[in-house]
Amino acid sequence: MRFATLRDGSLDGRLLLVSRDGLRAMEAAPVAPSLLAALQRWAHVQPALQALADALDAGHAAGAFDFDPHACAAPLPRSPQWLDGSAFLNHGRLMDQAFDKPPPPLVDTVPLMYQGASDDFLGPHDDVPMPTEADGIDFEGEFGVVTGAVPMGVSPADALGCVRLVLQLNDWSLRALGPHEMKTGFGFLQAKPSTAFAPLAVTPDELGPAWRDGRVQMRLHVQWNGARFGEPHGGEMNFHFGQLIAHAARTRRLTAGCIVGSGTVSNVARTAGSACIAERRIIEKIDLGESRTAFMRFGDRVRMQACFDDGREGPFGLIEQRVVSAA
Amino acid sequence: MRFATLRDGSLDGRLLLVSRDGLRAMEAAPVAPSLLAALQRWAHVQPALQALADALDAGHAAGAFDFDPHACAAPLPRSPQWLDGSAFLNHGRLMDQAFDKPPPPLVDTVPLMYQGASDDFLGPHDDVPMPTEADGIDFEGEFGVVTGAVPMGVSPADALGCVRLVLQLNDWSLRALGPHEMKTGFGFLQAKPSTAFAPLAVTPDELGPAWRDGRVQMRLHVQWNGARFGEPHGGEMNFHFGQLIAHAARTRRLTAGCIVGSGTVSNVARTAGSACIAERRIIEKIDLGESRTAFMRFGDRVRMQACFDDGREGPFGLIEQRVVSAA
Repeated sequence: MRFATLRDGSLDGRLLLVSRDGLRAMEAAPVAPSLLAALQRWAHVQPALQALADALDAGHAAGAFDFDPHACAAPLPRSPQWLDGSAFLNHGRLMDQAFDKPPPPLVDTVPLMYQGASDDFLGPHDDVPMPTEADGIDFEGEFGVVTGAVPMGVSPADALGCVRLVLQLNDWSLRALGPHEMKTGFGFLQAKPSTAFAPLAVTPDELGPAWRDGRVQMRLHVQWNGARFGEPHGGEMNFHFGQLIAHAARTRRLTAGCIVGSGTVSNVARTAGSACIAERRIIEKIDLGESRTAFMRFGDRVRMQACFDDGREGPFGLIEQRVVSAA
Repeated sequence: MRFATLRDGSLDGRLLLVSRDGLRAMEAAPVAPSLLAALQRWAHVQPALQALADALDAGHAAGAFDFDPHACAAPLPRSPQWLDGSAFLNHGRLMDQAFDKPPPPLVDTVPLMYQGASDDFLGPHDDVPMPTEADGIDFEGEFGVVTGAVPMGVSPADALGCVRLVLQLNDWSLRALGPHEMKTGFGFLQAKPSTAFAPLAVTPDELGPAWRDGRVQMRLHVQWNGARFGEPHGGEMNFHFGQLIAHAARTRRLTAGCIVGSGTVSNVARTAGSACIAERRIIEKIDLGESRTAFMRFGDRVRMQACFDDGREGPFGLIEQRVVSAA
């Protein structure tokens, strides 16, 4: 199943089912008013939602209409928690060089994860208001999952069974603020403004064999102002999503609808490019002796699209955003 | 006005108004079903809620009943964000000694703040499930505020005007996990399980002159297993709540219902005692050469009650909790 959320002025928006070809949609309201409501009663509503999705794909759903991703909010405009890992160790290693800091302790065995704000997510085509270009505006292309209810102390294997949906997201970051917040030990806060999401949240089966080993085995194609920036592959994640969920649930239970992120998709091979500017800057510094690429300016655009290994477009749809002055 | 939330199986619970003497309550459902719903439409519902509260205090509210704090969830069982400061620098200075680390940069001028989980708060009398005593189980007595909608970039003075309610809370902490998470730079996650709240959330006017300079000018009396632990005073906060809210909103807007915490109430005067065990342990180490007080065991109880300077009990009610094994 593929879900999207129609912006309707409410906090949770209105749940849509979207056809496999991405062209048609229908309201799921008779079954669940919002995606959050569906996740909270997943076992109860899943069969009815699947029946609606099947009817939509078969072309005989009553009330179907053309799908417009520009009318969409994030699939979950708010979620109970937003827990973002840093599960591509290649990215972490490069960032440590960028911040001129030693690697964190236990980095190979214990996932890094920060708690982000989850009350005000951005939709796939929303402008991104930022206070000042001086903050070092950067995108971060990631994959993520939405969980059902997760018990405290879950094992990584059982945690994988709690994955309900897979997501593609852009974890907006302010690089001038991150180093200070890391040094305090209290973690990212101002450095992580509202995160944005591709329009479709999909059940893992929609990925077919590209959902494998608890990872999204797809390339994330990133363009900045129309130019290719990178297409790193999600399969290189050093911790899988089950490990990330289990880490998050070590001392707390998670309620249905929590989002767990992969961290910036990042590959060891330089040919893959990057999914954030900070990483390119540090690669430039290493390879060329200096960072040549500046961070984003107001008016800049970023585009992210996941693709299967055979080149077909992934099921999440596009993130296409423009940075604007919040003033 | 004094608000409480009746546990009714829903995520947001059912909104109650409570009389000034804390003995009687009434449902606010005709005006707002939950406290979160009230906060989201505050300007619209505030006059009607005040009318109900006045009728309740005058003893002629239809449908009033005896107030039972044991039936209460946290005033906001879930909130859009939970942003906890560390605004009593005395606590931070002692904790730096405990963790054997230098003071964070800019600690005197930029508030420390971490983002906590806000989807699963504990009520005032809820048992506290923890995975293992080895994690260093500790309480943290704090004050907090609930905001209305806060625009990005708000000034500290304007932020104070966004305070809708004042809270008393217990920020449960796991001390064995904190130092590692601080060293990673990603901040607290496993070290901060679900936070608990006193039953009543009150409008600032309920504090009278004890709401002054953006601070809760009351003592927080803490008992551990029936023995006095401390009664530090909230007036020593080095950053006021307007400064904390402005810090949180520097690069994001806050949606109505966000909770901002003071951090552990802590006074320079040793005679005030402490509001968390970690602080007593480091004081013991400094004064006696070693930490003598162990962290909590399963079955241990903590009690927190705020009092006005004249000794009268504060308006928030009691936190009285017992730590239990999550297994």
